[in-house]
Amino acid sequence: MSELRKDPVIGRWVIIASERAKRPTDFFVEAPKPPSPGFCPFCPGNEDKTPKELLAYQYPIESNPDSRWWLRVVPNKFPALVKAGDLEKSRDGIFEKLSGIGAHEVIIETPDHQSSMADFDLAQIEEVLKAYKERILDLKKDERFQYIMIFKNHGKQAGASLDHSHSQLIALPIVPKRVNEEIEGSLRYHRIHNRCVYCDMIQQEKASDLRIVHENKTFVCLNPYASRFPFEMWILPKAHQSHFEKTPSETIAGFAEILSHSLKRIKTVLSNPSYNYMLHTGPCGEAGDYPHYHWHLEITPKLTQVAGFEWGTGFYINPMPPEKAAEYLRNGVETRQELDAAILPFSV
Amino acid sequence: MSELRKDPVIGRWVIIASERAKRPTDFFVEAPKPPSPGFCPFCPGNEDKTPKELLAYQYPIESNPDSRWWLRVVPNKFPALVKAGDLEKSRDGIFEKLSGIGAHEVIIETPDHQSSMADFDLAQIEEVLKAYKERILDLKKDERFQYIMIFKNHGKQAGASLDHSHSQLIALPIVPKRVNEEIEGSLRYHRIHNRCVYCDMIQQEKASDLRIVHENKTFVCLNPYASRFPFEMWILPKAHQSHFEKTPSETIAGFAEILSHSLKRIKTVLSNPSYNYMLHTGPCGEAGDYPHYHWHLEITPKLTQVAGFEWGTGFYINPMPPEKAAEYLRNGVETRQELDAAILPFSV
Repeated sequence: MSELRKDPVIGRWVIIASERAKRPTDFFVEAPKPPSPGFCPFCPGNEDKTPKELLAYQYPIESNPDSRWWLRVVPNKFPALVKAGDLEKSRDGIFEKLSGIGAHEVIIETPDHQSSMADFDLAQIEEVLKAYKERILDLKKDERFQYIMIFKNHGKQAGASLDHSHSQLIALPIVPKRVNEEIEGSLRYHRIHNRCVYCDMIQQEKASDLRIVHENKTFVCLNPYASRFPFEMWILPKAHQSHFEKTPSETIAGFAEILSHSLKRIKTVLSNPSYNYMLHTGPCGEAGDYPHYHWHLEITPKLTQVAGFEWGTGFYINPMPPEKAAEYLRNGVETRQELDAAILPFSV
Repeated sequence: MSELRKDPVIGRWVIIASERAKRPTDFFVEAPKPPSPGFCPFCPGNEDKTPKELLAYQYPIESNPDSRWWLRVVPNKFPALVKAGDLEKSRDGIFEKLSGIGAHEVIIETPDHQSSMADFDLAQIEEVLKAYKERILDLKKDERFQYIMIFKNHGKQAGASLDHSHSQLIALPIVPKRVNEEIEGSLRYHRIHNRCVYCDMIQQEKASDLRIVHENKTFVCLNPYASRFPFEMWILPKAHQSHFEKTPSETIAGFAEILSHSLKRIKTVLSNPSYNYMLHTGPCGEAGDYPHYHWHLEITPKLTQVAGFEWGTGFYINPMPPEKAAEYLRNGVETRQELDAAILPFSV
């Protein structure tokens, strides 16, 4: 029988519908096409086709003939929000609005048009994470911004419109709904238990070892108990920390290692699907750490369609129990045929 | 410049990003393929391929040689939740779960495999809505159910796995997150203003006439102020009513008329995209009406991808201002080329 499971932080329920896993084809979607050749504004040589760069990690002049940089951050050419202007609030009857002040940036993660993050070497992933940190710290100086969200859309199914490996950053003048739910939920838990709910989660997951995909000295990757999507993964630092951007440099390497590992697992076990990842860090404007909040990265492979039920309820139907997902991801089923065979017995 | 707009009921912000509307191709997606021939379990003659029917609207024996019925409701063959069993609650450390008790039904809306709801005559749509009402009233007798959600996935992009026109019903042992947010938000508004926020919304929208697509004597169809998606539409009854299933029979005709009109608009103006609709009605178990809540139907054409930003924040970036959407939908741009031409000037 199916189960309804509750997310311990925000209270969102999901239906873990093992009966529906009878249809293993549910999980097989078209892999993203290999990057098309043709013109790419993110490739070396086309630097003038993007808005003026905000950050670049560069080689000493002329030392690398292929590309002068190994990472660039530029403003988004079609920004959802812009930096120039005042943050104006207005109201018309029951409706409220704010002017679209914020920032919208693109992190070009590599000069190599063909390479996706799962293929990067560890040093390159570390550079990407350092750029995230550097951009957040810079934008936090602007007091109009209350939240900075970093996310990645990999593959067309996940909303990527350009093939060249990149992630995005949006600075917002308000704390987003989803983050607020996490902050409020974790605060409620902290008031009752005087502990961080994410720290407790890590402890319980390590004790049961049912849903842990991988861990290293400083990080853990798990399939959350109330996963919304098949093979959803969360990466959490083991030590309590509310804000990603306060991660010390020596810990970034551990994050790079576990992120690389997780993306490689997704690529091989699930035949290179589209995916999104979202960095959940604490809001801006706080000098100290939150004792109740714990930053983390959520990775969601795009294997199923979100449909009317999910839009109507805010609940999710997930046909892949996270315990099974962890088993597949740990054992590293290597081909689609093997995954098919692995899922079939479970559906009987 | 873009705007951040707040939904007046649940407080969710959306970014109405007119700058991003510079790319009209954002809105053009593949239309659903015409229904494939081949075997269909929902077609007349294959009644034994579905679980035993729960409801059928039928012709007198032998009077219609094509099909004995014009509408059937059957249990979903791959149910997310099942009726048999006890509703058991359990807890494991920080995690909580419920057994998967509920109901999952399919409303087969027509015997005609080729026809989609936008093509139905009004009488047939009225029958579908009557079946919704009849099934909700029946399931509300089961005290384990706290909420009944009816929704439709039209086209593969919207999550439909079968072509034959149908909608679905899921009865849940808990009130879903999204509905709770609406109930709480509208209750908060009612406490302050002693009025229904949806009634106020209808009044304000009628006064401004900026976002109304169509109205008749009993219903209004509008593009909501804080639309999450391009061409998102809400249909609301003009008279206050918290529960759809209490709609008197004579009012159902008005709902059928405006629903038909709205779906025809979507089909012609947007070149037959995939869409979802979700019926938001009040929770079960209340004898009387809620003074604060107002049932409605939300229709969301699938024209853009939901991506990392939306998953991470719970906010939405919508490149189509609802005022513009209402204009296009009202004026009835008839072809994709016309829509293209209509959007281009706006993006300059």
